[in-house]
Amino acid sequence: MTNSQKEVVHTQIDDVREALDRGKVKRVRRLLKTMHPAKVASLLEGLSGDQRISVWHLVDAQDEEKVLAHLPQRLRLQLTRDPDANAAEDGEGAEPVGAESEAESQLRLVLEALANGKLKRITRLFRKLHPARIAGLLESLPAAERGTAWDMVDGDRSGKVLRHLHEEVRRRLAAEMDLEDLVDAARALEPDDLVDLIQDLPKATGRQILNAMNARERERLESMLSYPEDSAGGLMNLDQIAVRASIRIGTLLRYLRLLEELPPNTDKFFVVDRKRHYQGILRAGRVLTARPEMTVAELMETDFEPVPAEQGSAEVARRFEDQDLISAPVIDAKGKLLGRITIDDVVDVIREQAEHSMMGMAGLDEETDMFAPVLASSRRRAVWLGINLITAFLAAWVIGLFEGTLQQVVALAVLMPIVASMGGIAGSQTLTLVIRGLATGQLASGNTRILLLKEAGIGLLNGLLWAVVVAALAILWFGNWAIGGIIAAAILLNLLCAALAGVVIPLIMRRFGIDPALAGGVVLTTVTDVVGFFAFLGLATLVLL
Amino acid sequence: MTNSQKEVVHTQIDDVREALDRGKVKRVRRLLKTMHPAKVASLLEGLSGDQRISVWHLVDAQDEEKVLAHLPQRLRLQLTRDPDANAAEDGEGAEPVGAESEAESQLRLVLEALANGKLKRITRLFRKLHPARIAGLLESLPAAERGTAWDMVDGDRSGKVLRHLHEEVRRRLAAEMDLEDLVDAARALEPDDLVDLIQDLPKATGRQILNAMNARERERLESMLSYPEDSAGGLMNLDQIAVRASIRIGTLLRYLRLLEELPPNTDKFFVVDRKRHYQGILRAGRVLTARPEMTVAELMETDFEPVPAEQGSAEVARRFEDQDLISAPVIDAKGKLLGRITIDDVVDVIREQAEHSMMGMAGLDEETDMFAPVLASSRRRAVWLGINLITAFLAAWVIGLFEGTLQQVVALAVLMPIVASMGGIAGSQTLTLVIRGLATGQLASGNTRILLLKEAGIGLLNGLLWAVVVAALAILWFGNWAIGGIIAAAILLNLLCAALAGVVIPLIMRRFGIDPALAGGVVLTTVTDVVGFFAFLGLATLVLL
Repeated sequence: MTNSQKEVVHTQIDDVREALDRGKVKRVRRLLKTMHPAKVASLLEGLSGDQRISVWHLVDAQDEEKVLAHLPQRLRLQLTRDPDANAAEDGEGAEPVGAESEAESQLRLVLEALANGKLKRITRLFRKLHPARIAGLLESLPAAERGTAWDMVDGDRSGKVLRHLHEEVRRRLAAEMDLEDLVDAARALEPDDLVDLIQDLPKATGRQILNAMNARERERLESMLSYPEDSAGGLMNLDQIAVRASIRIGTLLRYLRLLEELPPNTDKFFVVDRKRHYQGILRAGRVLTARPEMTVAELMETDFEPVPAEQGSAEVARRFEDQDLISAPVIDAKGKLLGRITIDDVVDVIREQAEHSMMGMAGLDEETDMFAPVLASSRRRAVWLGINLITAFLAAWVIGLFEGTLQQVVALAVLMPIVASMGGIAGSQTLTLVIRGLATGQLASGNTRILLLKEAGIGLLNGLLWAVVVAALAILWFGNWAIGGIIAAAILLNLLCAALAGVVIPLIMRRFGIDPALAGGVVLTTVTDVVGFFAFLGLATLVLL
Repeated sequence: MTNSQKEVVHTQIDDVREALDRGKVKRVRRLLKTMHPAKVASLLEGLSGDQRISVWHLVDAQDEEKVLAHLPQRLRLQLTRDPDANAAEDGEGAEPVGAESEAESQLRLVLEALANGKLKRITRLFRKLHPARIAGLLESLPAAERGTAWDMVDGDRSGKVLRHLHEEVRRRLAAEMDLEDLVDAARALEPDDLVDLIQDLPKATGRQILNAMNARERERLESMLSYPEDSAGGLMNLDQIAVRASIRIGTLLRYLRLLEELPPNTDKFFVVDRKRHYQGILRAGRVLTARPEMTVAELMETDFEPVPAEQGSAEVARRFEDQDLISAPVIDAKGKLLGRITIDDVVDVIREQAEHSMMGMAGLDEETDMFAPVLASSRRRAVWLGINLITAFLAAWVIGLFEGTLQQVVALAVLMPIVASMGGIAGSQTLTLVIRGLATGQLASGNTRILLLKEAGIGLLNGLLWAVVVAALAILWFGNWAIGGIIAAAILLNLLCAALAGVVIPLIMRRFGIDPALAGGVVLTTVTDVVGFFAFLGLATLVLL
């Protein structure tokens, strides 16, 4: 008996030591929680000074007293003297420095705690923060240290933190987790977020998570997984409350009281028939203001359009935004109620769309993790630089056509970047406007001709203005009237082409199913560079030689 | 008697004719509504064929029959034969052409109706659409025709449509409206939207709208106007429901029933003390699931942080997004409940922020109207082109320093844009990442050094890679090993500088209160152009001459 017990003790301590060596902080915390305080104490005694402090930082706050009771006086003093090692105190040591914001001081605290190995500080800070804020802090950490901080998130909250992380960061952290922890985290997630997570993970891992769920959950998740991530079906949740038209408000209220708490964002209930076909909505506000003897049928609204499951998420977002919705029912092709979409997920879609446009223009579309490993980032960005290189060589080739001219009039080499650059700027103004117009749906076949005329008009006006200014400066600089005339003509021509290209390029790309926000800029710059160099050097060759 | 009556008839018809001549369609519609059907008929009789059809299109649908009764047979036939002139029919003539989306066919319908003067079609279409969709259609129209379509919006909905328009479009339409119509539209707006509108209008017009409100409304609006547009106070609405902690749920429910309808987005009530100091929240869902005899105090949550009125709207948006809020209370410095912010306004803030980043990078910050008049757009964009011209001349000046070198080795002129362009692309990748990091608050003083090292690492790796590629291509092209070596060194140097500049420029701008999304790109390109040209041509001068 004593023997076998001793063996168990031995094994647990060994487990902890092994997890410590492998840097699996989360595992150490879990093991410590399952161990008897006396065992933890004996483990602490057997460790070297530094390691002892580290492990002490991983002991759960509520077990501290009990563990201390088993320790010799000397060690007890050593551990309690460390001001950060105990949950009892609170002062956090995070006095704001100067005009530092709260977010900045939190980040500083985490970075310092990581540097000094005072992990308990992180746990304590995280306990006070909203999961979204923890996610923000984790994203602000370099990839190497993110894992350690992540391990300090309490298990029951890690799912919620995962949900708020950017896709790339989430995938990377989930990949490092033990399956056991991952399943725990997954259980704490709402179905729509869990579906997102599974879609982000390697197929096998996603399968393992599904297998860990019970049959009913698994079936529901699988039906949600059958819709693409960027469709209404991929956005929807299954926590809607469906009611029948025939019941009375009093009955509904009694049912709701049984639930005790409503799912978040429940601003309406969905009315269905016996076969769960969608019939209309009943606003929660109406229930509050109704008399108990009224029926759902009297209060429901039948003209609220449900969202088809296959509708694209961009369209769903636009409708939520336009109609100020909080939630909307999702139906399948036969009109059956499948679930609901809520505003919190729509806000995420809107934010992602916006980021996509902005990041896409710099060729950073997939780079959602600011602290992704250098090699991964370099590889992704190299693609964009490579594409750009092709267009740069194209421009160089155009210049190369006029080597003879450049040799004779070197001032042309000095001035030619100005022509290309003005065209590039003017073109990207038009391009940005058109990309936004396409994204918001305000630009359609009916009004592109009008926009083209307007942009051409702007190109003409600005072309004339800047042609005169640049010509004057060039004449002043080089004392050559011919060069002034040539650069004026080239700038005017290039600004007109830029307006045309800015409207036409994104429209053509869209027709071929290419995202103009992603590749429009490169194609546009190619056009304005080539036209600019060709017009300027070509005219110069004709006039000057 | 007969005489004076005749005079009145005469005056009304004159009014209509005058309004017609001045193109004030809305005024014509309003006048027609107040006229006796017989008078409208005699007006129609006195008009020429084309004008008659136009005015007939402005007769309200429910008055059509009565007016027709007063018309001679011939005219009656003429007007009713026009298939679009009558409300009775419905078929809309908007059969989708090919794969045209609904939005596209609506836009086509409006444009065609405007071109043919069949304005009734527009009214009928608008009556079926959500105000947000009408706003979208109006924004898709060229400025000249927008006014006419806008006049076809029914008076009681024009306020809601105004609310959904972009700032610039709204300002322009409101400026063209009669004060009377504007006040009508303003009355239909919620206070927060009205405050936005007043802030957009010329001071005098805003004052006139305020004066048209009753004293109580005016006072509330003025207190809201005292907060900046981009603060919590500027975002808030005054339609919150405040309750006292001591009352019972049953009492609350009886009070709510008196209201019949709750304000939109009411997911929580706010608990206040006798002096309206904020004490906590009571979720509407909790009221639904509570027993009537419970008190508010038992169910309220006291740990929900209220929003201070002076908090910035970006911070408010981040909190709504992070914590998935629908509404939040706004308090003044003394803790008094002032109003509430709702998710619909926060979604607008998020969308505006995103657009601001994207449009700002192209120097289009204020250009929210895609169809702004050519002259106004040209003027605004000229500023950006002018700023860019300065930087372009700076780059040209650098090239000018090496005129002698260029004259001797003209291949340098051919290759130099490649060095500048690669630096510009790499730098803008870093810049975009940093701007996003600053906007989301993930980049703070604690982790900039880490980011700088990471970006420098990426710059080094990509610099090495592309230096080798470009060098190889340059050697192949010009058969000159020295030029290959020079361009390789210049590219590596420029990519390292680009990484440094991409991190440092936005941080410095921010410290000086300049928005990096607006001006970062220009400064960055200046740096990469100057460094690129200087390194390439300078090295060439040292090595080749």
